[in-house]
Amino acid sequence: MDIAFEKGGGLVPAIIQDAQSGEVLMMGFMDTETLAETQSSGEVVFFSRSRGRRWKKGESSGHVLKVREVRVDCDADTLLVRVDAVGPGVCHEGYRSCFYRRLEQDRTASVVERQTFAPEKVYGQEKRG
Amino acid sequence: MDIAFEKGGGLVPAIIQDAQSGEVLMMGFMDTETLAETQSSGEVVFFSRSRGRRWKKGESSGHVLKVREVRVDCDADTLLVRVDAVGPGVCHEGYRSCFYRRLEQDRTASVVERQTFAPEKVYGQEKRG
Repeated sequence: MDIAFEKGGGLVPAIIQDAQSGEVLMMGFMDTETLAETQSSGEVVFFSRSRGRRWKKGESSGHVLKVREVRVDCDADTLLVRVDAVGPGVCHEGYRSCFYRRLEQDRTASVVERQTFAPEKVYGQEKRG
Repeated sequence: MDIAFEKGGGLVPAIIQDAQSGEVLMMGFMDTETLAETQSSGEVVFFSRSRGRRWKKGESSGHVLKVREVRVDCDADTLLVRVDAVGPGVCHEGYRSCFYRRLEQDRTASVVERQTFAPEKVYGQEKRG
């Protein structure tokens, strides 16, 4: 099947879900090359919009995402990657999931999860990966 | 907090997750107005990129998404909406989730979920909503 990369300027969103807990961990983007590498290597590789280049999740932190299954939606324009997440969390802010805040009706945000690691010890100066 | 609508031309992706099962049901987009309406009404409203307008999920099918909680990610550019999904499924193809196909390494797709309703009976001619 054709994945609709052209809809998003060559990129499709890839939702990352913990295969065991069902927790949604993060969302990133993939182009055709990083999707192929994700599938062939068995570890998640994104295309970073901000850096404009391939970005292997865990390249600096060691917190890699081991692929269990890739799903594609009805429109073929969004991926769902079910993973085993290595390490205490995927978020550069020190949480298991990047979705650690609840958005209230007044658009304030409340932290509703606990930190699982100290990000400065894992990432040092570079705050990603 | 400021949601980074400007990153996506006024829209942010909104991942829809079943609050009870943890299943990822679909992904849509919201602008500032449809996010506000989603939060105030308690039912999910998207901005449809293809139609270029507000799109209330369930407007034709009755399969509305009742909001339990809205989460926001570390970069404030992606939403996770945890919902109670009314009806047998959210997908216009007749499945509980839009992610009913597994993407194989050779990019063929395999249906790995069972249909939960007959879409032609729910949607008639119009295949969405």
